[in-house]
Amino acid sequence: MHILVVNPNTTSSMTRKIGAAARAAAAAGTEIVAVNPDFGPASIEGHYDEAFSVPGLIAEIKKAGDADAYVVACFDDTGLDAARCATEAPVVGIGEAAFHVASLVAGKFAVVTTLARSVRAIEHNLVRYGLAGRCAKVRASEVPVLELEVPDSTARDRISAEIDRALREDAAEAIVLGCAGMADLAAALSQEHDVPVIDGVACAVKLCECLVSLGLKTSKSGAYAPPRAKLYSGMFAPFAPPC
Amino acid sequence: MHILVVNPNTTSSMTRKIGAAARAAAAAGTEIVAVNPDFGPASIEGHYDEAFSVPGLIAEIKKAGDADAYVVACFDDTGLDAARCATEAPVVGIGEAAFHVASLVAGKFAVVTTLARSVRAIEHNLVRYGLAGRCAKVRASEVPVLELEVPDSTARDRISAEIDRALREDAAEAIVLGCAGMADLAAALSQEHDVPVIDGVACAVKLCECLVSLGLKTSKSGAYAPPRAKLYSGMFAPFAPPC
Amino acid sequence: MHILVVNPNTTSSMTRKIGAAARAAAAAGTEIVAVNPDFGPASIEGHYDEAFSVPGLIAEIKKAGDADAYVVACFDDTGLDAARCATEAPVVGIGEAAFHVASLVAGKFAVVTTLARSVRAIEHNLVRYGLAGRCAKVRASEVPVLELEVPDSTARDRISAEIDRALREDAAEAIVLGCAGMADLAAALSQEHDVPVIDGVACAVKLCECLVSLGLKTSKSGAYAPPRAKLYSGMFAPFAPPC
Amino acid sequence: MHILVVNPNTTSSMTRKIGAAARAAAAAGTEIVAVNPDFGPASIEGHYDEAFSVPGLIAEIKKAGDADAYVVACFDDTGLDAARCATEAPVVGIGEAAFHVASLVAGKFAVVTTLARSVRAIEHNLVRYGLAGRCAKVRASEVPVLELEVPDSTARDRISAEIDRALREDAAEAIVLGCAGMADLAAALSQEHDVPVIDGVACAVKLCECLVSLGLKTSKSGAYAPPRAKLYSGMFAPFAPPC
Amino acid sequence: MHILVVNPNTTSSMTRKIGAAARAAAAAGTEIVAVNPDFGPASIEGHYDEAFSVPGLIAEIKKAGDADAYVVACFDDTGLDAARCATEAPVVGIGEAAFHVASLVAGKFAVVTTLARSVRAIEHNLVRYGLAGRCAKVRASEVPVLELEVPDSTARDRISAEIDRALREDAAEAIVLGCAGMADLAAALSQEHDVPVIDGVACAVKLCECLVSLGLKTSKSGAYAPPRAKLYSGMFAPFAPPC
Amino acid sequence: MHILVVNPNTTSSMTRKIGAAARAAAAAGTEIVAVNPDFGPASIEGHYDEAFSVPGLIAEIKKAGDADAYVVACFDDTGLDAARCATEAPVVGIGEAAFHVASLVAGKFAVVTTLARSVRAIEHNLVRYGLAGRCAKVRASEVPVLELEVPDSTARDRISAEIDRALREDAAEAIVLGCAGMADLAAALSQEHDVPVIDGVACAVKLCECLVSLGLKTSKSGAYAPPRAKLYSGMFAPFAPPC
Repeated sequence: MHILVVNPNTTSSMTRKIGAAARAAAAAGTEIVAVNPDFGPASIEGHYDEAFSVPGLIAEIKKAGDADAYVVACFDDTGLDAARCATEAPVVGIGEAAFHVASLVAGKFAVVTTLARSVRAIEHNLVRYGLAGRCAKVRASEVPVLELEVPDSTARDRISAEIDRALREDAAEAIVLGCAGMADLAAALSQEHDVPVIDGVACAVKLCECLVSLGLKTSKSGAYAPPRAKLYSGMFAPFAPPC
Repeated sequence: MHILVVNPNTTSSMTRKIGAAARAAAAAGTEIVAVNPDFGPASIEGHYDEAFSVPGLIAEIKKAGDADAYVVACFDDTGLDAARCATEAPVVGIGEAAFHVASLVAGKFAVVTTLARSVRAIEHNLVRYGLAGRCAKVRASEVPVLELEVPDSTARDRISAEIDRALREDAAEAIVLGCAGMADLAAALSQEHDVPVIDGVACAVKLCECLVSLGLKTSKSGAYAPPRAKLYSGMFAPFAPPC
Repeated sequence: MHILVVNPNTTSSMTRKIGAAARAAAAAGTEIVAVNPDFGPASIEGHYDEAFSVPGLIAEIKKAGDADAYVVACFDDTGLDAARCATEAPVVGIGEAAFHVASLVAGKFAVVTTLARSVRAIEHNLVRYGLAGRCAKVRASEVPVLELEVPDSTARDRISAEIDRALREDAAEAIVLGCAGMADLAAALSQEHDVPVIDGVACAVKLCECLVSLGLKTSKSGAYAPPRAKLYSGMFAPFAPPC
Repeated sequence: MHILVVNPNTTSSMTRKIGAAARAAAAAGTEIVAVNPDFGPASIEGHYDEAFSVPGLIAEIKKAGDADAYVVACFDDTGLDAARCATEAPVVGIGEAAFHVASLVAGKFAVVTTLARSVRAIEHNLVRYGLAGRCAKVRASEVPVLELEVPDSTARDRISAEIDRALREDAAEAIVLGCAGMADLAAALSQEHDVPVIDGVACAVKLCECLVSLGLKTSKSGAYAPPRAKLYSGMFAPFAPPC
Repeated sequence: MHILVVNPNTTSSMTRKIGAAARAAAAAGTEIVAVNPDFGPASIEGHYDEAFSVPGLIAEIKKAGDADAYVVACFDDTGLDAARCATEAPVVGIGEAAFHVASLVAGKFAVVTTLARSVRAIEHNLVRYGLAGRCAKVRASEVPVLELEVPDSTARDRISAEIDRALREDAAEAIVLGCAGMADLAAALSQEHDVPVIDGVACAVKLCECLVSLGLKTSKSGAYAPPRAKLYSGMFAPFAPPC
Repeated sequence: MHILVVNPNTTSSMTRKIGAAARAAAAAGTEIVAVNPDFGPASIEGHYDEAFSVPGLIAEIKKAGDADAYVVACFDDTGLDAARCATEAPVVGIGEAAFHVASLVAGKFAVVTTLARSVRAIEHNLVRYGLAGRCAKVRASEVPVLELEVPDSTARDRISAEIDRALREDAAEAIVLGCAGMADLAAALSQEHDVPVIDGVACAVKLCECLVSLGLKTSKSGAYAPPRAKLYSGMFAPFAPPC
């Protein structure tokens, strides 16, 4: 099985970390390829960055047209709906993956993400997916995305402190880490706090393996129908849906 | 007052129709400029097209940096959140505008849109905005967007028939037209069916005038904070947020 | 355009303040007439007062039968549904107006109102309108309505302190002032706290202008159908719906 | 125990029917007094009539200041919140009573009411009470309230036909009759359709008996706090809350 | 009238206390029989205990096949749905009884229960019943169930302290005691805190009396249809539904 | 990896079918053992049967104390919460598994189950899990559970007809089969209707594999804490939680 993991930002060190987390989670027969677009923002922190990361995400999916499944490796599930229209293969976002998995091991979970500006987008996704009632609170640790790439930063400690607050104040029974760049922290934080600490990258890889094994593909009868043939102009002409 | 109305698709005949509807709704002192990107899809029918229309939308907003307010003239409110991050001025989507206005004149409204594939995205927006409970049903007339630009098409009759079903089967008290390209049909359909029939383009222009008059701008303290300075690569480099 | 702004309580100093706020918000061609009933309670603080303010509100609307639109200037939207049945012209409550406008400029807003006893009624309205999910919290400043009419009171400071709590504790991105008597405070409080602070009186006037410009009237096909002809006895006989 | 049942409209034949239904439901030691205001509308069909029935309702409650509990005998629960502020004794609306009782004997119930114009108000109450999820549908039989007072009308048959539709189309497991004037039909319709058919008048009487027996009174710490002392002007001066 | 009150755990001292509370609430003509199974757990603290208490609960209901109504006297409403299938007579759970009654006397209530592990189950019930929006918070006092049976324990004080927090922090207007074993504390705690403090045992008895008086039985047309005849094996063979 | 699949009813032919479906879905290294209790009901059709199937389910889990994960193979997720308290290993219900998987491949899904009496229980689960908004409708095919074991029955055709209605009337984009006994029909029905048709048994096995691979166990900090030590009497004494 071949799963393409797309980090929709352009920071290749983060792509490597995500790839490693994905490979660590993958089954023996699963080949993971982790890529990022060569155009777009270096990190995704809010809706503006999202807007400019989605075309690159789709470009990567189109390039790798033969993957068995795709992971969108940004916790906001940036471009997930568009990606589902772009391919017949299953596509899983790391945010939704973490929410669904957390719902299987805990009555209520909390999300610990990066910056306050991302909280609303995550809340909106929870509402759309129907899982808002399962989430006690979305919390910001105020750690910027790229600080997670900096050795010797205090990022990990601030995230751990926020987890502590979620457990005490929100009665959360599990923690979802709200950024792909936190993928390498899950195991140690789980041990430290003695509750499930869930990383979306690993979850998304496993859910892709599930869907492929089950022979399930994205339904093409409604929201994710293939794009209708039409003119695409200018820099996006190469992305025009075929007739 | 200067309002920039951005049709996020590249079909200039539709932009002209939208511009005319916007001007017809505008107050005496309001200058309407209607534009569309020169790159992107010719129509927006589903999530894939959306992904490739948002950068062009943002580009138009950036070019016209001195407008007092902005209208996103696609009923899916494509790129609305990103647009709100891109400017301090108010930004209103024609979908949300129509939903809020309909809520002021009817207990429950129905939406009559183009294709079935757009229903779910509209439902998702209603859920996110909190107004799902006010909408009796989102209905597809199965009229493709660009057929609305074709003289002598039967589009208007099919839309009218769908309105009829919404009034009889859903007990809708008002109708929201679910596509910018239907802006010119609202008045006649309202007269024909004797209920409010609401066009989002006109509503969005009026709500922009409201917000500007009230001196209200998009809050910058949370979801719509300005983008943080960072590297943008490749074709999107020109859109990098300033330091 | 002629907009009748009805303060449903009988305190004329408050009516004058509301009228001034309404006129400050109105467009050049809009004539504002601000009135209050000559019978009923001096302020509206809870459901009991509401019950005795609605007939006076309707009486004022009936007297001014030729207005283009009506504003119900009590933050509880007291009698709004009844008022919509009483006229074909649009009617907008200042509570709903503020909620809809706040939804256009912020991901989540908080309400700062007068007394704790009014919190539940405002929460109920938010639930009914569908906008509860957009409101982080309804907060009481424990400032009674008529204290807002007293020079040298500390009311403003207590409201400002409550706004501060809403921003810090609720992550509110905008503030809605929950009483018509706070209309004159919005601008200064917005500047002080650097977030949108929204007054419902101004919002309702602008939304009335919107609806009138758009040619939209309250739907008469359901909840707001005109009253059926019937006998009204005693002191309310003059209000009997015509055959 | 003394329960005052207030029919908020002025039609005394309907008050007599309601009184008989209440007495039939009451326990041996319960004295039922059924009254109606001498001012206000002859029937309550929509929000306009409601506005003019609430002061009369409160007047009746104030007159009978020594009752142990009060029933608001209009299915819209007209003035229920105001009534709760007007007395320390429990107050129960026949709409809410029927909804709560139906929730104890059925997974989902349907409401069969009079006119379409009343549907939205009932839906709003269900949302406010939190019981909307328990109601499969609110249905209008298009029988006007006062036709229920007319011998030889076909009202009963049309109500029965609507019950039939609710059972077949909505999978309702119980039926709530949505008008005080239908109180005398419940038993026969239940037998005819072999499901619980629930009349709110009887339910409200029994719930009042419950609350009185349990020594429970309306909480005065929030929404139902007693009205604050203030000036009431004109025809409502006699209703001013005492200092 | 004969009401069987089943304490689904096997602790007979608790059954006696529940029986006393039930008798204190019952009307003159109501005979209360309080029983508990002779097999199962000594207390019900979480889902595991629930699983082993339901068959005993059903056994008691089957033994007493001639009661007019049944009370399930565990605050989690353990086995309530199954009990409703097992008999034609009404069945009321003490949790739901307390929630419905609290909704009649307060805008919002809080629940004060025993252990944190029970919070989620109570929240789930509130969601299922539709009354989650009426509950400000479910709070754990961390008093184990059987400590309520211990003379000289500090249980009462810890419960009172938790009530205090609910009133101050959650703006609760009434308190629901979240354990059958707290039935004897309601009156004194209500007096101490000057708000309604509601015990589910008494509420359930009164609601049973209501339903029986009204001639209402559980609907057999859907969720609570009688069990279909089928083979039951092993220790449960005696419980097989009859052909 | 060792997964124990428990069919909570006692029909061994159904257990064999479930076991085959589970093995067909399992990865190469996964050992599936499918069991059923030797006491309890022969099929689970409603809440009464559920009550008597949970102890047997727990007994099977306790017996197989060394499994890496457990599947509850009844679509009502009978006893799932209790099972999660009984073991540290992950436990997945086939109902929840199907709902979560369907949410990854479709905007909205419909459920096609056996009898009308099961509809409400499934709706309740959807509400509790938070996924009700993702389900267009729960539909009954009126095929009893054990008819699925009968060769030459018309069960498959009636299920297919109900799927057809779900696609046409509910705009469902995927179908969830609402009974473990339908596990063998999914593939052919998916091909016939050209949408994803999802069997919960296969989904649950794959999700168990996910959770085990990810090293995730049920959180023990809240709803699923291990049972507290206490006396269990009579036939359930062997199930008493250890001190």
